[in-house]
Amino acid sequence: MKLLEDKIRKDGKIYPGDILKIDSFLNHQIDIKLMEEIGKEIKRLFPEIKPTKILTIESSGIAIASEVSKEYGYIPVIFAKKKKALNMSEAYIEKEKSYTRDEYYDVSVAREFINKDDQILIVDDFLANGEALNSLVGICRQANATILGAAVVVCKIYQPGLKRIENMGIHVECLAKVKSLENNTIEFE
Amino acid sequence: MKLLEDKIRKDGKIYPGDILKIDSFLNHQIDIKLMEEIGKEIKRLFPEIKPTKILTIESSGIAIASEVSKEYGYIPVIFAKKKKALNMSEAYIEKEKSYTRDEYYDVSVAREFINKDDQILIVDDFLANGEALNSLVGICRQANATILGAAVVVCKIYQPGLKRIENMGIHVECLAKVKSLENNTIEFE
Repeated sequence: MKLLEDKIRKDGKIYPGDILKIDSFLNHQIDIKLMEEIGKEIKRLFPEIKPTKILTIESSGIAIASEVSKEYGYIPVIFAKKKKALNMSEAYIEKEKSYTRDEYYDVSVAREFINKDDQILIVDDFLANGEALNSLVGICRQANATILGAAVVVCKIYQPGLKRIENMGIHVECLAKVKSLENNTIEFE
Repeated sequence: MKLLEDKIRKDGKIYPGDILKIDSFLNHQIDIKLMEEIGKEIKRLFPEIKPTKILTIESSGIAIASEVSKEYGYIPVIFAKKKKALNMSEAYIEKEKSYTRDEYYDVSVAREFINKDDQILIVDDFLANGEALNSLVGICRQANATILGAAVVVCKIYQPGLKRIENMGIHVECLAKVKSLENNTIEFE
């Protein structure tokens, strides 16, 4: 998605430790017009599917998922929570490792919101090691829901996440594929 | 806002400890069509203002703020973070008490995203004790930005938050004013 790549090139910031920050339009401040365009692009990449729900994870996935919902007829958005607020009998819970903070935390979705009849499109902002997506896939599988695919805004294709999720049998589409952040330069595939 | 009150009456759940849960359309699963209607209603309540930015707090404020942004010409949305990711010289930080969890945490916004020229409309999901709004007001004041008002989706008017924020000189509008949750019944003003 050229518009997105241009935006990342212009406003993305590279930090030591292979960190790409896009705080100015997605992860802290949000460019809502761009979110609309991202929603349309995700629909273009998954034109034929008929999801019943969009599943994402707080917080940065929410603005993206809202726009994707509209493209599929205003279906409900569910955002998985990063802090468990429910007990095990009420929620599907997966462990997720945070590489940024070097700690594990629970990712949860209340059982009442996903069931075996659901056709889920997963949406998230970043794919690097694949921890967040792996949790969301695990939650759908606990619920015996069908996963129609996963759409990710920015993917670091040189990290293991993309292959990891594809190897689980999931159709993954990435809107911007980062192939290198070396020499303080963002290279896309 | 009648549509919202009807939805709360139909799908809201009351729990011991004066807790009103609206997880099925706002705080966990999100009804995106309703978010659009909420965005329009907030514009109707603040018709004349010309905000430069919408400020909210993760996570449930984001879907609301996205729709409000569109009503004012797709201005940027900033969501304050509940876990400090930046140091003091890079961020405006306020302490907020969580009554649900009985702990304090930091609410922060990177300094680069709000400045003295900004005209801010604050948006949030709930107003009870006013802790979250108080933090957002504090952040705007640290930045010397102008606060045009605060729009809240659900307000418990029998708790101290509304008066507290109004006493700070802020114009607050609430879309649904809950006046009691007694006897397992939701009463609106």
